[in-house]
Amino acid sequence: MTGIKKATIRDVAARAGLALGTVSRVLNDHPSVTPQARKSVQEAIKALGYQRDAVAGSMRNARTKMVACAIRDFDIPAFASYVKAAEGVFRRAGYTLLLASTSNEKDVELALLRGFAQRRVEGVMMTMSDEADAELAETIAGAPMPIVLIDRELLPDVDRVMADHQSGAEQAVQHLMSLGHRRIGMIVGDPAAYPSRSRIAGYRRVHAQRGVAVDEALIRDHALSNEIAFRETCALLSTADRPTALFVAAMDMLAGTLRALRSNGLQPGRDIDLVAGSDSDLAELGTPPISALSWDRAEMGRHAAEMLLDRIRDPQPRAPRCVRLPVSLVVRGRPYDGLPRR
Amino acid sequence: MTGIKKATIRDVAARAGLALGTVSRVLNDHPSVTPQARKSVQEAIKALGYQRDAVAGSMRNARTKMVACAIRDFDIPAFASYVKAAEGVFRRAGYTLLLASTSNEKDVELALLRGFAQRRVEGVMMTMSDEADAELAETIAGAPMPIVLIDRELLPDVDRVMADHQSGAEQAVQHLMSLGHRRIGMIVGDPAAYPSRSRIAGYRRVHAQRGVAVDEALIRDHALSNEIAFRETCALLSTADRPTALFVAAMDMLAGTLRALRSNGLQPGRDIDLVAGSDSDLAELGTPPISALSWDRAEMGRHAAEMLLDRIRDPQPRAPRCVRLPVSLVVRGRPYDGLPRR
Repeated sequence: MTGIKKATIRDVAARAGLALGTVSRVLNDHPSVTPQARKSVQEAIKALGYQRDAVAGSMRNARTKMVACAIRDFDIPAFASYVKAAEGVFRRAGYTLLLASTSNEKDVELALLRGFAQRRVEGVMMTMSDEADAELAETIAGAPMPIVLIDRELLPDVDRVMADHQSGAEQAVQHLMSLGHRRIGMIVGDPAAYPSRSRIAGYRRVHAQRGVAVDEALIRDHALSNEIAFRETCALLSTADRPTALFVAAMDMLAGTLRALRSNGLQPGRDIDLVAGSDSDLAELGTPPISALSWDRAEMGRHAAEMLLDRIRDPQPRAPRCVRLPVSLVVRGRPYDGLPRR
Repeated sequence: MTGIKKATIRDVAARAGLALGTVSRVLNDHPSVTPQARKSVQEAIKALGYQRDAVAGSMRNARTKMVACAIRDFDIPAFASYVKAAEGVFRRAGYTLLLASTSNEKDVELALLRGFAQRRVEGVMMTMSDEADAELAETIAGAPMPIVLIDRELLPDVDRVMADHQSGAEQAVQHLMSLGHRRIGMIVGDPAAYPSRSRIAGYRRVHAQRGVAVDEALIRDHALSNEIAFRETCALLSTADRPTALFVAAMDMLAGTLRALRSNGLQPGRDIDLVAGSDSDLAELGTPPISALSWDRAEMGRHAAEMLLDRIRDPQPRAPRCVRLPVSLVVRGRPYDGLPRR
């Protein structure tokens, strides 16, 4: 392509030697078109570099070939992996991806859904800040386009892709208890959303199984940024009876916790044991390397994109689908060599 | 908002007690509208939850209120920061951001530009894989919408935002030379694009100033992924006269190099000195922490978004603008305590 060509549908008709209506029928995949007419139009389109106006075209047949993805924050690497995988699936299917960030705020989520509907976006992949919010739930369930929820569980009629975060949290806490820890601090996000709610459930379940009482002060449940993870870790470390291990369960919050440990003069693996709730370069390449929970984020993005394309292509009502991906613990670093120390 | 309302412009006119044409003039910001009519229409819109169809609206006035950003890869955290900042600026201005990844391939870049034009995207922020490619240059210069280039220099007529990567590379190499190193390996990206080209120029300049001959075998210039950075680092380490220090200049490639060092049994700061070309949690929180080049990526995103909005709002031809952000070296970790060792 050199420059943007300006050939019109009239030019195509003239070059193909066909009536305008015939060209229009070819462009709209009308069944009454002969193979010969289709071939002539395709050749003329190619020769002239004709580009159909996507906005005008979408007015006629209500297909914008756009899908949208609303995520909490662009700069969380764990989200980027699934967006990247989803975008690959959409691109191969001829769809353009619109990406927006919500800052995990209900008002932004509602405004985005409204904007997507106005732009006739054909499908949306999203999370929701508060699964118990009736207005959000009603808006999502009643949206004019199919929606696939990412890591949310409370809208049973909507397709969704989730990771098994409760199992992950259970593995993390089991691991730390097997190293001798009984006071395990937990840095986690808002329980209004499935991932944090299920991680807290897993933490409690292992404590109950082992007969260890849960000290509620050890669960810090509103870490949505590394700044908050830093502050919450400092708060946990400043208590008289501080935890001997930390489960940094919130997504991509390990950096905040590591900064807090460093500013308190503590070294992971020597002074305190850690498990990260989501694997990262930082966990893998730390000294010592840090154990972390892992699931296939690219697979999550691919599943979500494929489910959405399925609904777009076949809008007949069908039972909602749920894909649940396994979470596993990657054990790293030297084992803690004794009982908790101060 | 509960659900997506279906009120029409006729419902608005009926409720406001005004003619359809008056309502249409209010919606299109026509100057001949009385304040009273505007108020009645606004009240009716609010009461009915009327939503103007954005696609139909954009047909009339050719404004889609969409801008696009094409980046090499979603999962490079350094790119995410500037996209996030740009998206904030666009959102506050009422624009929706379309995001696409190019895999650094010319064909994808051309296809995306074509798609953006067809969708009447009002402006584009992008890089380009090869600044010397005539077809890409012509397509960008002749695009029907304004374009802001990110970290590219060779199209003087196009607005652009860049970081001063040559100065950054000079600081990195100066620092390593001041620690006693003379054989400095460089892991860098493709010199077809400005950032890598200017980093290599900076590397050469400091060598010339210090009278140190450049061993071309030490410059590995096609690291576009952590997998390649891993392989290139291994290659450098396997040579008979291996480098005593590494400048990992490619964007966000430190993880690949750290994996290679670990698999070769080498520790940064003890066995080899490192400077990372872009700062990250991994550089800051490593043991020892790793010196890194830093520039304000959020500022880069904000500048690019504001330049683009300026061009969209005022399409009169004006001299192209270039914002160049400073790059500085964050020195970290214990200094290398002697001359190069093996």
